[in-house]
Amino acid sequence: MNSGMVARVLGNLLLVEAALLAVPLGISFYYQERNAVLGFLVAMGIIGLIGLFLSNIKGKSVRLKAREAILIVTLGWTMTSFFGALPFVLSGSVPSLVDAFFEVVSGLTTTGATVIENVEVLPRGLLFWRSFTHWLGGMGILVLTLAILPTLGVGGLQIFKAESSGPTPDKFTPRIAATTKTLYAIYLTFTIMQVLIYLGAGLNWFESFVFAFGTVGTGGMSIYNDSLVRYSSNTFLLNAISLSMIISGVSFSLYYDLLKRRWKHVFMNSELRLYLGILVVSVLLISINLYGSVYTNLGETLKHALFQVSSIMTTTGYSTADFDLWPSFSKGILFVLMFVGGSAGSTAGSVKIVRLLVAAKVVRREVSRTLHPHAATPITLNGRVLSTETVQGVVSFYLIYFAVFLLGSLVISLEGLDLFSAMSAVAANLGNIGPGFGAVGPTRTYALFSPASKLFLSFLMLLGRLELVTLLVIFTRGFWRE
Amino acid sequence: MNSGMVARVLGNLLLVEAALLAVPLGISFYYQERNAVLGFLVAMGIIGLIGLFLSNIKGKSVRLKAREAILIVTLGWTMTSFFGALPFVLSGSVPSLVDAFFEVVSGLTTTGATVIENVEVLPRGLLFWRSFTHWLGGMGILVLTLAILPTLGVGGLQIFKAESSGPTPDKFTPRIAATTKTLYAIYLTFTIMQVLIYLGAGLNWFESFVFAFGTVGTGGMSIYNDSLVRYSSNTFLLNAISLSMIISGVSFSLYYDLLKRRWKHVFMNSELRLYLGILVVSVLLISINLYGSVYTNLGETLKHALFQVSSIMTTTGYSTADFDLWPSFSKGILFVLMFVGGSAGSTAGSVKIVRLLVAAKVVRREVSRTLHPHAATPITLNGRVLSTETVQGVVSFYLIYFAVFLLGSLVISLEGLDLFSAMSAVAANLGNIGPGFGAVGPTRTYALFSPASKLFLSFLMLLGRLELVTLLVIFTRGFWRE
Repeated sequence: MNSGMVARVLGNLLLVEAALLAVPLGISFYYQERNAVLGFLVAMGIIGLIGLFLSNIKGKSVRLKAREAILIVTLGWTMTSFFGALPFVLSGSVPSLVDAFFEVVSGLTTTGATVIENVEVLPRGLLFWRSFTHWLGGMGILVLTLAILPTLGVGGLQIFKAESSGPTPDKFTPRIAATTKTLYAIYLTFTIMQVLIYLGAGLNWFESFVFAFGTVGTGGMSIYNDSLVRYSSNTFLLNAISLSMIISGVSFSLYYDLLKRRWKHVFMNSELRLYLGILVVSVLLISINLYGSVYTNLGETLKHALFQVSSIMTTTGYSTADFDLWPSFSKGILFVLMFVGGSAGSTAGSVKIVRLLVAAKVVRREVSRTLHPHAATPITLNGRVLSTETVQGVVSFYLIYFAVFLLGSLVISLEGLDLFSAMSAVAANLGNIGPGFGAVGPTRTYALFSPASKLFLSFLMLLGRLELVTLLVIFTRGFWRE
Repeated sequence: MNSGMVARVLGNLLLVEAALLAVPLGISFYYQERNAVLGFLVAMGIIGLIGLFLSNIKGKSVRLKAREAILIVTLGWTMTSFFGALPFVLSGSVPSLVDAFFEVVSGLTTTGATVIENVEVLPRGLLFWRSFTHWLGGMGILVLTLAILPTLGVGGLQIFKAESSGPTPDKFTPRIAATTKTLYAIYLTFTIMQVLIYLGAGLNWFESFVFAFGTVGTGGMSIYNDSLVRYSSNTFLLNAISLSMIISGVSFSLYYDLLKRRWKHVFMNSELRLYLGILVVSVLLISINLYGSVYTNLGETLKHALFQVSSIMTTTGYSTADFDLWPSFSKGILFVLMFVGGSAGSTAGSVKIVRLLVAAKVVRREVSRTLHPHAATPITLNGRVLSTETVQGVVSFYLIYFAVFLLGSLVISLEGLDLFSAMSAVAANLGNIGPGFGAVGPTRTYALFSPASKLFLSFLMLLGRLELVTLLVIFTRGFWRE
């Protein structure tokens, strides 16, 4: 293990974080939030010093291997969450370090779950930082899933790019740099467009930025205790946010293809088609279920159904209504969508559509093999044959996901809340969604949990965000053995 | 498709069913239950006539292919359930044909779910028939999983016998005959032993037979509305039933090995070890959770924990306590066990331990492959390498199982009960367990459901019992195309 090199990269990451804290610091300065300004300054000092120290450690070589890259990604996400929590604690706004850590993990993993019961009393600078972490985390996950992980061959995400079907450390740095640049440009464009649209819908500058961060990163942190319920009569805004979330749930590699005018690539993409198909069917089923019982107006029904389906499926987690009060069938669809997620290569979390697509093909092949046991039919995706390893990676992902979900639910059930609430809490955190049902429903928070459970849920958020295997492999003996 | 041959086999099956109805007829005759006697006689006449008619249809050949065998198994289970429901309807005891069908499907699939709110008013002959179907269904599933399915290469069940790793229609008849004979002997011995032990524990002859049928078949139908709660102070009986259920959840191929004195085969068997391991750990965890809160006496705690874990894990479904009132953690363990099940090749249902074992190895390989992408490590079971097809079969089974579970829960949620109750209803019927949680908890029945949902749950019971693929393949176009 090239520890020196790992430390250096992490140090640089912390220096970037310290620099980025200047943005919320500026906000707090503008709004004259004295404690927050002090909190940010001290945090920047601490993070900057540790960053400087780490970034000056000398490594043996400049070439990173898969093992080191995995360690950097995992430690990077955890460390920036820990240090990003400092402003909350140092300003006195969120005295508990565990609570503050939960908030920033939730932010950087674009989950949006919160343990703060009254967010409206928080200083503006800290509210901004909380939402800004969504934006940073969303950008981080794009780079991770579209540039870093494919070169490592981890977690079945090499599906996108056939040319990067195995670990090729040689091409590591140049590929990341090129891909990252384009992704940044697309991501930034979407953010600016959303800010402008939200301004047009009647939000102020601060709100527009905060909600653009929350949607483009599919995060879902609000600056109001009722999420977005207060805007439920602003149809234009709600539909704009729905559309923004849907756009954020599409693989960013398709926007890249759009830029290159590869129209056929985009419109014939099977993941995109299934994503939109599931979205439309879910909205229709929920609308039929809600119309006449929960809502009497057809437009209202469709608006709320579209919003909530988009919000859960893209793993954003905003709410415009207390969907926990909806009938069981509608809640059931939302619950199932928690295990579907958005497209791979988007900022959305959970299992992701492309895996569902591959799993469906595996199942179809298995059923037909009952009759033709010796017919070897390969699994294809967008006309390309997938390797056995890729298919096994996808299927194993499902096994691990459900195992973590069931065992995680057992751990959380020790908190004494009802079992379904516990299950939904685990699904919502592992899937980077945010709100669950019942005791952790859209009008509630995760404040009721013990510090141990908050840390466990933080771990689940990281596990889900890092595609399970990237984090789990660190706990194997083989990882640490040279 | 050799339809004539299929019809002939089904006809013979119905003739056997008509003959078997003589047993409960005798019981009703003895207890002078006039309506039940008439119901049985008319049913036997109808079933016998249809059986005679079908068994006289001439087939083109006597050799069955995989396709025909699958059709016979599936139609056989469905038809015997339908015709087995006639005595309930004709005697007037259960006027609704859907309800009666549900009861017999539940019996023959060894599920034990019921839609009859007051079973204690039923004639003894019908109560006996209801439990007798567990015994017959249990025997049927042993023959199916240990003799028929392996020769068809269906559903990953060829895991047991390496020599039968593909469809070998040639060996079909002799293998089944030999295996079946030994299985019958073991099954019968267990039943007689259990009857004698229950008699010794203070039950009368009728009760002893009914509960022996329910445990050896891992069914779980009771002749009392409170399942076994009335006996909760009879520690000897409860522990005897717990032990009986645990024995029924072990693969019967291991008892065959015991007879042949292959000690090492049995004690080194990884499925048996994992089965007992999960059982012990679950009992301990639940005991720790219940001791001091639900029960104050340690012996009582262990007794009920052992009973309920054995009952759910072996998919029997008896209850000695309202476990729906237990704390979330204990309920959570029971809920997870609903997706574990007993050993393959036992009368237990659900996913089964051997699949869990293979899935765990697949996951371990996937995690380690993150670091060594090109290391091809085969999956082994009891020292033998499993074929890629077998491993894929196991993993696909999980995918289908969870897909059916989630989509089935959506269908049942339309009944308006809470989502977790709906989910537990689907898990309990698909896994051939019986009781679920909440609205379908151990003190409740499935009487609250609409006829459509009762039929859907019946379908799920058959789907689970027939290892999913055996039933699903019939709904594919390829099955009907020559």
